[in-house]
Amino acid sequence: MMSRIGDHHGVNVAVVGATGAVGEEMRRLLLERRFPVHQLRFLASPRSAGRTIPFGDREIVVEALEASSFAGVQLALFSAGATVSREWGPRAVAAGALVVDNSSAFRMDPGTTLIVPEINGHRVPPPPALIANPNCSTIQMVMALAPLHRQFGLSRVIVATYQSTSGAGRQAMNELDSGTRGFLAGDEPAPEKFPRPIAFNLVPQVDEFDRLDYTKEEWKMVDETRKILELPDLPVTATCVRVPVHRGHSEVVWARFDRPVDVAGARAALTAFPGVVVEDDPGAKRFPTPRSASGLDPVFVGRLRIDPTDEKALVFWVVADNLLKGAALNAIQIAEAVFGGVRQPAS
Amino acid sequence: MMSRIGDHHGVNVAVVGATGAVGEEMRRLLLERRFPVHQLRFLASPRSAGRTIPFGDREIVVEALEASSFAGVQLALFSAGATVSREWGPRAVAAGALVVDNSSAFRMDPGTTLIVPEINGHRVPPPPALIANPNCSTIQMVMALAPLHRQFGLSRVIVATYQSTSGAGRQAMNELDSGTRGFLAGDEPAPEKFPRPIAFNLVPQVDEFDRLDYTKEEWKMVDETRKILELPDLPVTATCVRVPVHRGHSEVVWARFDRPVDVAGARAALTAFPGVVVEDDPGAKRFPTPRSASGLDPVFVGRLRIDPTDEKALVFWVVADNLLKGAALNAIQIAEAVFGGVRQPAS
Repeated sequence: MMSRIGDHHGVNVAVVGATGAVGEEMRRLLLERRFPVHQLRFLASPRSAGRTIPFGDREIVVEALEASSFAGVQLALFSAGATVSREWGPRAVAAGALVVDNSSAFRMDPGTTLIVPEINGHRVPPPPALIANPNCSTIQMVMALAPLHRQFGLSRVIVATYQSTSGAGRQAMNELDSGTRGFLAGDEPAPEKFPRPIAFNLVPQVDEFDRLDYTKEEWKMVDETRKILELPDLPVTATCVRVPVHRGHSEVVWARFDRPVDVAGARAALTAFPGVVVEDDPGAKRFPTPRSASGLDPVFVGRLRIDPTDEKALVFWVVADNLLKGAALNAIQIAEAVFGGVRQPAS
Repeated sequence: MMSRIGDHHGVNVAVVGATGAVGEEMRRLLLERRFPVHQLRFLASPRSAGRTIPFGDREIVVEALEASSFAGVQLALFSAGATVSREWGPRAVAAGALVVDNSSAFRMDPGTTLIVPEINGHRVPPPPALIANPNCSTIQMVMALAPLHRQFGLSRVIVATYQSTSGAGRQAMNELDSGTRGFLAGDEPAPEKFPRPIAFNLVPQVDEFDRLDYTKEEWKMVDETRKILELPDLPVTATCVRVPVHRGHSEVVWARFDRPVDVAGARAALTAFPGVVVEDDPGAKRFPTPRSASGLDPVFVGRLRIDPTDEKALVFWVVADNLLKGAALNAIQIAEAVFGGVRQPAS
């Protein structure tokens, strides 16, 4: 059943994976950003069906996905994994919806647009269509690279990530807490969501291993960056590591350009770019951290400096809330680009 | 007072900073590796003087440093910070000792050798002399780079570190625990040893900021790597980050060579190098983590792969116990190179 929220000028919205870590942020952002919702439907796995979830002062019953789920839906926000998206995304489009899909299922499909609104919002197709929301680690990196590329011409990227547990979902966040409490008490439970204990540890594997001994997460950063920046041959080399942090992904990025770079010019380009905040003052020990960026909309860039051994290279540290700009916020921004909506400033 | 430990064929040893995190490992290694100790003296700050510390079945009283501290001392292992080393290191040498200094005080002094025994043990000078022990992050990186350099000719290094709290000393390790417990209980103490809370967080600043907005730790990785590998112009670019891990530093290293590289050749070179263990089998999810490397002697290399965008580049993950090979173990190995001693296999 669709719950009526606002007047009939609004949009009929379905959130698929509404009970997950990203789904929770999608629900919150729809409300906080005053997205013009007419009717609303929360969809999830049969396990979660029947639960009641508040939306403002309303209570909405979570429904299991079924053939009729997308009847009348104009916007379907998917965040329930690639398998669900592959099965149900095309059906939602066939029912007339604009699907914004947070999974990896269609991102590299040549016919699917992969959107970060600040960078390639002009590529958003009219509904019905499926738009892919990029990988969290990719979004925050390209948000920093795009303005630098416009200024200096990007030619090479080498990145090492420091990814929080929330990127692996709610249970993974809980595993960090239970593992940490267990470790401190001398009685640590065996890991389930991660291949090794994550408490006070690092796991240099995010997603499954794939070709050439890189993980799928590492290939996403290569392939999606090329697609979003429309630089199909850009050399990108990524190493992705999980860290014992709840929320907020961090990255050390080494980027080389066609032309010599200067820090002042780079800082100006980043500062002028919507959605990016430069937080960088070594003298005052100012730089972003995952905890300082957690719960906030912008992509934060700090530790910006030239490479003293290469006048065409910059090194920086980029931090963003992976559940917000890395997932739910970017998805809502895509929806806003299509349906309008009262947009909030990025921070 | 010197405590007599072994027979008079042994060496008179002083441990300066004996109560610190590295000092503790030095004491343990002297015993476990059966270093031929004749007489032994534990030195520390006046704050720790008078404490009694066990050494095997003996109890040794910690003494404050004073003018007569090094009388009769043949080997002085320093790990009490640069200020103490600058003041007392030369005095110990003047008294006839071989000083192995774990601080940064003399590392880049042109007249001081900077030793990683497996790489440049042939450069160890005869006593009396001061030998500098390199920075922890540098040691584990050059241990992996040295055999690759011999095989392929090193031309470029870009590194991002994931450094544990023990690198900042015992109080910093305690701050991770107290901060973590406080965070989980909703009552987190303010950070003291780190510029930001380290619990469930990352701090992209290790040591103080220095020229060009790089930190001293980052410059150490540049300068010391060049000195140890005797490649004074090697381009090295480092970004150092503190992570909420107790023990064990990790690094993502991107290394470029003069010649095209192959993974099998790289793996063979690393495997043949003493002190390095390749732990790398993506199919079996085998790779080192700081917790798996903690308390062990070797430098572990995993996630070894070619860079698909550059046939001359390799990417890998290197993990070592920063208190052992990164500090105390390397110092003891230097002492063993000078005084002999019964050497233990590296693991």
